[in-house]
Amino acid sequence: MKKGNRYGTHRVIEPIGALPQPAVKISNDMEIYNNEILIDVDYLNIDSASFTQLEQEANGNIEKIKKRILEIVNKRGKMQNPITGSGGMLIGKIEQIGEDLRDKIDLKVGDKVASLVSLSLTPLRIDKILNVFPEIDRVDIEGKAILFESGIYAKIPEDMEDTLALAILDVAGAPAQIKKLVKSGNSVLILGATGKSGLMCSYMAKKMIGKMGKVIGQARNKERANYLKSTNLCHEVIIADVLKPINVLEETLKANEDKEVDISINCLSIPNTEMSSILPVRDGGIVYFFSMATSFTKAALGAEGVGKDVTMIIGNGYTKGHAQIALDVLRESQTLRKIFEEKYIK
Amino acid sequence: MKKGNRYGTHRVIEPIGALPQPAVKISNDMEIYNNEILIDVDYLNIDSASFTQLEQEANGNIEKIKKRILEIVNKRGKMQNPITGSGGMLIGKIEQIGEDLRDKIDLKVGDKVASLVSLSLTPLRIDKILNVFPEIDRVDIEGKAILFESGIYAKIPEDMEDTLALAILDVAGAPAQIKKLVKSGNSVLILGATGKSGLMCSYMAKKMIGKMGKVIGQARNKERANYLKSTNLCHEVIIADVLKPINVLEETLKANEDKEVDISINCLSIPNTEMSSILPVRDGGIVYFFSMATSFTKAALGAEGVGKDVTMIIGNGYTKGHAQIALDVLRESQTLRKIFEEKYIK
Repeated sequence: MKKGNRYGTHRVIEPIGALPQPAVKISNDMEIYNNEILIDVDYLNIDSASFTQLEQEANGNIEKIKKRILEIVNKRGKMQNPITGSGGMLIGKIEQIGEDLRDKIDLKVGDKVASLVSLSLTPLRIDKILNVFPEIDRVDIEGKAILFESGIYAKIPEDMEDTLALAILDVAGAPAQIKKLVKSGNSVLILGATGKSGLMCSYMAKKMIGKMGKVIGQARNKERANYLKSTNLCHEVIIADVLKPINVLEETLKANEDKEVDISINCLSIPNTEMSSILPVRDGGIVYFFSMATSFTKAALGAEGVGKDVTMIIGNGYTKGHAQIALDVLRESQTLRKIFEEKYIK
Repeated sequence: MKKGNRYGTHRVIEPIGALPQPAVKISNDMEIYNNEILIDVDYLNIDSASFTQLEQEANGNIEKIKKRILEIVNKRGKMQNPITGSGGMLIGKIEQIGEDLRDKIDLKVGDKVASLVSLSLTPLRIDKILNVFPEIDRVDIEGKAILFESGIYAKIPEDMEDTLALAILDVAGAPAQIKKLVKSGNSVLILGATGKSGLMCSYMAKKMIGKMGKVIGQARNKERANYLKSTNLCHEVIIADVLKPINVLEETLKANEDKEVDISINCLSIPNTEMSSILPVRDGGIVYFFSMATSFTKAALGAEGVGKDVTMIIGNGYTKGHAQIALDVLRESQTLRKIFEEKYIK
């Protein structure tokens, strides 16, 4: 065994010198380096934007989705959707730990872990796809994966089903970033509030703003709006079409005493929603994009085009303590725990 | 004349309900609405990422570049590069002001202005392309353009040549954002420090950090590095390949007493440089992307992939007072004024 690069550049096949994430092809040879960890994979949890794209391309046909996933992984050595650029995460058991890491980390062979780095940079070999669950973006497989020295992970907690923990950890960055971002008294608009990260962000935003602020959750139709109201995670619920920024702006103003909000948080997974995030925010406010379908140029030029002096942030899936923060949200909120248990425990 | 929407949605042909920037096609009919301004255009200043793409596609052939620009504008009603999504800006004379705006703005017919909103959302009709200057991304035309009510603009100052002012206003957001962002004592890495916005950002960063901080400018080769050193706009100059993040990281550490920097600023105009911006920044630091070639997913997943707890910001071309701040930089710095006069006054 030899020592690999901390960031995994030793496995990049094309282009040489690149990091594994932007690389077109990486090695999924499962003989590990001294500072790598080998995982026997149970499930993949495909990124929502990626899974939606795969599903549309295959017209919802499961066999075609399976075939496409295998094609991608065989070609690139990792499960990175070539259209969306995004990945997802995995859950599995530690099979082998490189000798340089053995005494440095809190893992032992047999531990059940979730990888907290994206599949878009994780060496992966799929031997067989066992099952696809489109309603939860989950793919059960037989296969192996590699974690680099810089790779982050979380042990699956004892007090939760593993599929539940995985679903939460997949969006762990979102509530953790909101915890840092949202201040007491803020008005906060959450686009896509009825989705997984939207619900978690709504909970955290409401917790952080205290008594004086307001959380406004957006839903796409009356049914979803009623559902969101029933959770009591937002102060106000609006129905608006996120592809129509003027519609989102008008509904937000109605729900916020005719004022623009301090912060908007985009938790959607569809393209062309940049302006719906930007228009409702006051000058000097913050726009946080978690959606992997966000276009950098559409956001940058869009804000300039309407003369909006806002700070736009690229959602970072990692921040210190994010796994713990996200799991604690579920421990604190019976409402969320119930919703997620119903959705993710099969 | 009738009143149009403040943001210009009344001119969107496809898809209906969209804003002009993300729209595929807008109306470039030059009969103005009550709250629009008609401009008789002299020049376009094409966004650097867009111009580079057009030049590569045409193998540097000027006639092919002209033909492609006409094709794009005829098809979309605006000069928005379909590959990069970006636009640029224009300079021209006020030809007509809609009656609703006449008493509200500080413009009169005949004033020479630069539009400070992107060409990617500005209705434009080109009657003839007179000349293309590839070294400064400038296209001289006969044609007309429309400014919406929300559109921002700057009168061309008396103490500068108009081509010089345009070149500065095109990147006005960059030094203005740096002024807000950089604090006393910060260490700042500027990628693409030898370019137009890179030089302006270097000047502003050095001004803001005071005596204790450090500005490190990146250049791609020895010749550019020597040039950058001669300007004295940075404290340290490094030579590094921005497509090799590990190389950028190592050179930055060498120039910063083996410490990661507080802030990195990406002023490049080539793709795949996200990780070169992220890796050299300390946990808790800030990564600011001005490059229109930035990929949202590559940045978001890249930071997560290497476990970097950084705040990543999408460069906003607009912030309050940005035109004044940028023009003042040139009035303050004889060095910059000389560089830009040599480059942009023909």
